Amino acid sequence: MQHFSERALLTDFYELAMLQGYFSKGMNETAVFEFFVRNLPPSRQFLLAAGLAQLVSFLGQLRFTEEDLSWLSSTGRFSSAFIASLRGLHFSGDLDAVPEGSLIFADEPLVRITAPLREAQLIESRLMNLLHYQTLIASKAARCVLAAPGKQLIDFGLRRAHGAEAALMAARASYLAGFDGTATTLAGMLFGIPVFGTMAHSFVQAFDSQTDAFAAFAENFPGHTSLLIDTYDTQAAAALAAHLHKWLRDAAPAGLSTPGIQAVRLDSGDLGPLAHQVRRILDQGGAAEVGIFVSGNLDEWALQQLLAQQAPIDGFGMGSQLDTAADAPYLDCAYKLVDYAGRARRKRSSGKANWPGRKQVFRCYDKAGFLQRDILALHEEHSAGEALLRPVLRRGRVVAAAPSIAAIRAHAAAQLATLPPPMRALEPATARYMPAISPGLQALVHEVDAQQARAAAADQARWGNEDE
Amino acid sequence: MQHFSERALLTDFYELAMLQGYFSKGMNETAVFEFFVRNLPPSRQFLLAAGLAQLVSFLGQLRFTEEDLSWLSSTGRFSSAFIASLRGLHFSGDLDAVPEGSLIFADEPLVRITAPLREAQLIESRLMNLLHYQTLIASKAARCVLAAPGKQLIDFGLRRAHGAEAALMAARASYLAGFDGTATTLAGMLFGIPVFGTMAHSFVQAFDSQTDAFAAFAENFPGHTSLLIDTYDTQAAAALAAHLHKWLRDAAPAGLSTPGIQAVRLDSGDLGPLAHQVRRILDQGGAAEVGIFVSGNLDEWALQQLLAQQAPIDGFGMGSQLDTAADAPYLDCAYKLVDYAGRARRKRSSGKANWPGRKQVFRCYDKAGFLQRDILALHEEHSAGEALLRPVLRRGRVVAAAPSIAAIRAHAAAQLATLPPPMRALEPATARYMPAISPGLQALVHEVDAQQARAAAADQARWGNEDE
Repeated sequence: MQHFSERALLTDFYELAMLQGYFSKGMNETAVFEFFVRNLPPSRQFLLAAGLAQLVSFLGQLRFTEEDLSWLSSTGRFSSAFIASLRGLHFSGDLDAVPEGSLIFADEPLVRITAPLREAQLIESRLMNLLHYQTLIASKAARCVLAAPGKQLIDFGLRRAHGAEAALMAARASYLAGFDGTATTLAGMLFGIPVFGTMAHSFVQAFDSQTDAFAAFAENFPGHTSLLIDTYDTQAAAALAAHLHKWLRDAAPAGLSTPGIQAVRLDSGDLGPLAHQVRRILDQGGAAEVGIFVSGNLDEWALQQLLAQQAPIDGFGMGSQLDTAADAPYLDCAYKLVDYAGRARRKRSSGKANWPGRKQVFRCYDKAGFLQRDILALHEEHSAGEALLRPVLRRGRVVAAAPSIAAIRAHAAAQLATLPPPMRALEPATARYMPAISPGLQALVHEVDAQQARAAAADQARWGNEDE
Repeated sequence: MQHFSERALLTDFYELAMLQGYFSKGMNETAVFEFFVRNLPPSRQFLLAAGLAQLVSFLGQLRFTEEDLSWLSSTGRFSSAFIASLRGLHFSGDLDAVPEGSLIFADEPLVRITAPLREAQLIESRLMNLLHYQTLIASKAARCVLAAPGKQLIDFGLRRAHGAEAALMAARASYLAGFDGTATTLAGMLFGIPVFGTMAHSFVQAFDSQTDAFAAFAENFPGHTSLLIDTYDTQAAAALAAHLHKWLRDAAPAGLSTPGIQAVRLDSGDLGPLAHQVRRILDQGGAAEVGIFVSGNLDEWALQQLLAQQAPIDGFGMGSQLDTAADAPYLDCAYKLVDYAGRARRKRSSGKANWPGRKQVFRCYDKAGFLQRDILALHEEHSAGEALLRPVLRRGRVVAAAPSIAAIRAHAAAQLATLPPPMRALEPATARYMPAISPGLQALVHEVDAQQARAAAADQARWGNEDE
């Protein structure tokens, strides 16, 4: 049986309503839709595209089941001819996309769909749901990576991610953006992401003695021992950890001897000063090689601040703030019809107008390899620069093999390296990086708006001019 | 095959690490864990408990598959004896919970798990993931319901919800909190929630004439026609809608005649003034019975403001702000060990200390039926008031039939009616409603801390007093 995340009915009801409208009028010519972000959140200087692999998989398996069709029928809102038309419907169109891990900016299409109108319309809701979330998280994670260069960063967000899929996709999106791994076990199995884990306070509490809890953990995970030391008295626990480390390394009987403890974890308190105190206790206790890992509602600003305080911290676990992108928990993204039946279109809604026509993004770099200029152009226009949107599906079939997650991660790192220094800062520069608009696209806007004005005048004339 | 959302490996890796630690020491006596919210977000005066039905279903089906076990084995981190112990593991414990739709406040357990230590530990991550999100959204949705009494409220959030599960659970959580329905079709099928939908801008754009687009929709959905009128020129489209409405109702040939148009939708612009203008155009055009529905990044403050402006709006679609709980996208929640092997426990981490022991929440109402006082007490203590936590599972089996979603929704409405007027306001009062701490619980804290201090002293003594 299909799972809920794979069902064709995981779509806004209006998609189905519109499909019946198109069906009743026999409308199913080629439509071009583009997915893009209208405006970046105030705190974002760039976005990192992600979620394409899941989109491809969704498009490949999209089918209505008989159960779906009977349920639709039971609503009494759809004709039996229309419902029959959904049987056998599958995605037979083209997909062009910016590769995952690429930098992307306002108004730049991440994905372009070219398909029969009904297919292109039906997929809107889930396409957005898939691309939006991973792009949101990859973009947040990239900021953390830039804020804490060389530090270990682990996704800890399962418990406060918004559901199962969010947790898994946050693990994937943060890893491709440069995180070192995740605590979400299943993400390790599904995506080959390195998995990390220490212990919860409950482990320490369940034992009568903290030393016994720590020793039991060390014994079970030689070489992977990370001890949570803030359950009761952090300084006292740090001293216990140093003792245990030396004992395991130097004095334990053969069966219990291990390389000692790899790290202690702090999850509460004022982490900067506390890390300094714990570092001192460990160093004075002969445990200089034991690292310090911290967690507890951290975001990219907290990382930056801790590192500015020279806090002796080796790694960070990031949960709620990362997996919910708490400072900007959604993107102002859209999936808009830009061409139907060979004619370019756009909407002009106040504050939400978009660029018409089938487009391409061209990117130019300066001699040092930094981002210089993006140009938003018509697909068929010639322009300097690298074309970002590339063919992924043709007539529903994959034409470009999906890169491995390692390759995506390497691409993301290379992309982040093209950010000019001011664009790497957590606080945005006043002038945002925006694509230039090509001459062809500027001309098309005038043409489309003039055509629409003629259509509107004709429309009003049909009802007479009584309102004028 | 199990779907990702049902897999036992959808858990933090540390749960498995701790399980092996417990296993190696033969520790599996009865543990009591409680799930609660430490502090409410600054903008919240109350929370509405939700997610219990999904928790019960998760606990019922929790099993490791052979594929899970081989993957765990392949990590090289677990002993074969431990992995064998996971085969056949299932949840055999007790669950007590506050009914879904109940008001809940800081430090009050929503759920208490009493089970063999390893089972109780293993379920932590997914239990939190399930309860946290629905409680988050139900609480946000309840604020919208209070801000817009008598107005139609529809969940529009699928596209910007954080993944598939978030979209479905937001539909469920907002409906039980008092919303009228959702645009997420699958939520209609799975949960029996009323489903609503109008049209997207693409529908209007795909037609050459706006009138043709509107007429095609009206023809397909007689009695359910809601037209999006902001694609090009909102005032002009409102006038077209009025003409079409009158024509459909009064002048159309028999086959095309319908009750007319039910509503127009505005999705951009300054919604308050615009709704007034559109209302005037509709009224003057003889379409006074056509309603106005608005959407576009609305939250509870926007609803309050629009209604304060007397904006003539009949219903609201809420998406991004609702499904991401954008002003407070996560709750400071925890699942903590409060008793193991018959001895109460607590952690004392800075800013994160919790109340020890198996607890109950007692609630008292004043004569007018408003909330008066909650008491956080030991489970076995006698107290005035209604006990909120009730048995749901005993030895892994359901002992209380799950209420229907209609019953949960009615309970939530009754609970919201118990909020004293200052607690219904969007802006929190300065003094938050907090449970009083019972004498028994206060005494237990001292006892637990004293016991822990003795254990800590013994622990230090084992390593000598060289640090003193």
